[in-house]
Amino acid sequence: MTGQKPIPVMEIFGPTIQGEGMVIGRKTMFVRTGGCDYRCRWCDSAFTWDGTGKSKPMVAEDIISKLDTLAAGRFDHVTLSGGNPALHAGIGDLIHKLHAKNIQAAVETQGTIWQDWLTHVDDVTISPKPPSSGMETDWKKLDTFMTKLSPQKTSLKVVIFNEEDYAFAKLVHMRYPHISFFLQVGNDDIHTTDDTTLLTQLRYHYEQLIEKVMLDSTLTNVRVLPQLHTWMWGNKRGV
Amino acid sequence: MTGQKPIPVMEIFGPTIQGEGMVIGRKTMFVRTGGCDYRCRWCDSAFTWDGTGKSKPMVAEDIISKLDTLAAGRFDHVTLSGGNPALHAGIGDLIHKLHAKNIQAAVETQGTIWQDWLTHVDDVTISPKPPSSGMETDWKKLDTFMTKLSPQKTSLKVVIFNEEDYAFAKLVHMRYPHISFFLQVGNDDIHTTDDTTLLTQLRYHYEQLIEKVMLDSTLTNVRVLPQLHTWMWGNKRGV
Repeated sequence: MTGQKPIPVMEIFGPTIQGEGMVIGRKTMFVRTGGCDYRCRWCDSAFTWDGTGKSKPMVAEDIISKLDTLAAGRFDHVTLSGGNPALHAGIGDLIHKLHAKNIQAAVETQGTIWQDWLTHVDDVTISPKPPSSGMETDWKKLDTFMTKLSPQKTSLKVVIFNEEDYAFAKLVHMRYPHISFFLQVGNDDIHTTDDTTLLTQLRYHYEQLIEKVMLDSTLTNVRVLPQLHTWMWGNKRGV
Repeated sequence: MTGQKPIPVMEIFGPTIQGEGMVIGRKTMFVRTGGCDYRCRWCDSAFTWDGTGKSKPMVAEDIISKLDTLAAGRFDHVTLSGGNPALHAGIGDLIHKLHAKNIQAAVETQGTIWQDWLTHVDDVTISPKPPSSGMETDWKKLDTFMTKLSPQKTSLKVVIFNEEDYAFAKLVHMRYPHISFFLQVGNDDIHTTDDTTLLTQLRYHYEQLIEKVMLDSTLTNVRVLPQLHTWMWGNKRGV
């Protein structure tokens, strides 16, 4: 496998539904990569970067072989998530090999590190992190992403925990008004195993967010969504 | 308003989120028309055709004026639902006038009655009714819809209550594999006001449907979704 760049993989699972964003409900497999250039306060996958999880270096064939072991013939869509998958050059080869098998690829990334393979991704979700994350957005970098990506295949998604996040979401949408825009309710209880209480809280926050957006004249061409997987399975991993 | 064809309108409300289908989460206004050529057993809007509701004849300007009264400047998307909105020729004029104001239009219809204005709709959901409805699909008519509509703006949605419905959904997807396909959990308790029990049931049915689809090799490029508005507000009307 000379020349292939291994990808640090944290977990591979599915098929399941994509629980959020532009292809919410889509039957998909998940490949979660390790490593992130961000350290979001409320990250629900901190094990990808805080040292509590262990990744395995895998090349495209290894990953495809694992996907087939799990669900050969039962999937045609793979979601690459992280961490920040855009850290890994090797994903270009993976996408190429998935496409050769008529399998689509989706990626979610915060829009900080550009990779040319992003232009081959079928569903790109760029998720700039709001103030509550503790991270700061480099708008110039984000501009580059928005210039290079095809609007038909791209969406922006902002997670909302508080007023500042909501104001940030508006800035993002106003800067790129022609890109599909998603507001998503943040999960501020990422460690609880009490799924019933969590659902009650998340529904409440979702309703609050809906009410706010409905009254807002600067947010019209937008979609407001929950994380369906969390409503269904709480904070459980691998579903 | 010489020459304008009035539309029988049952209710106009919003802005709220679209709770289901291809633009789930989208901020939208709803215009619900009266009358239907179907009598689905489990119809959640039977008041549009069973004589329990009363419609008001309105031309496009009346409807737009009512929408503006509710939310002028806070919306750019209107969902036309029913009943079967495709019964009404006057909707063509409404869509034309909405577009002139940079407002998009979505329509849901079962695919039984063609109207040329359907080609101008931004988001078309065709929802053939499965066996549990008691209705029978005219496949030739459905073929006409699929030939005339642009695949980029069209989706198919089938509601699932039982095994026969699931088998029917597969037939629909296999007949039109290149059209975005949505499976939706049916609500078999459309009169309850016990929202908590309803949510528990709907989540259970959603999980069952997800499990079934995940194991199915004939359903890969599909999306499985709940009705978010029912999860949020139960059977309440006008939300």
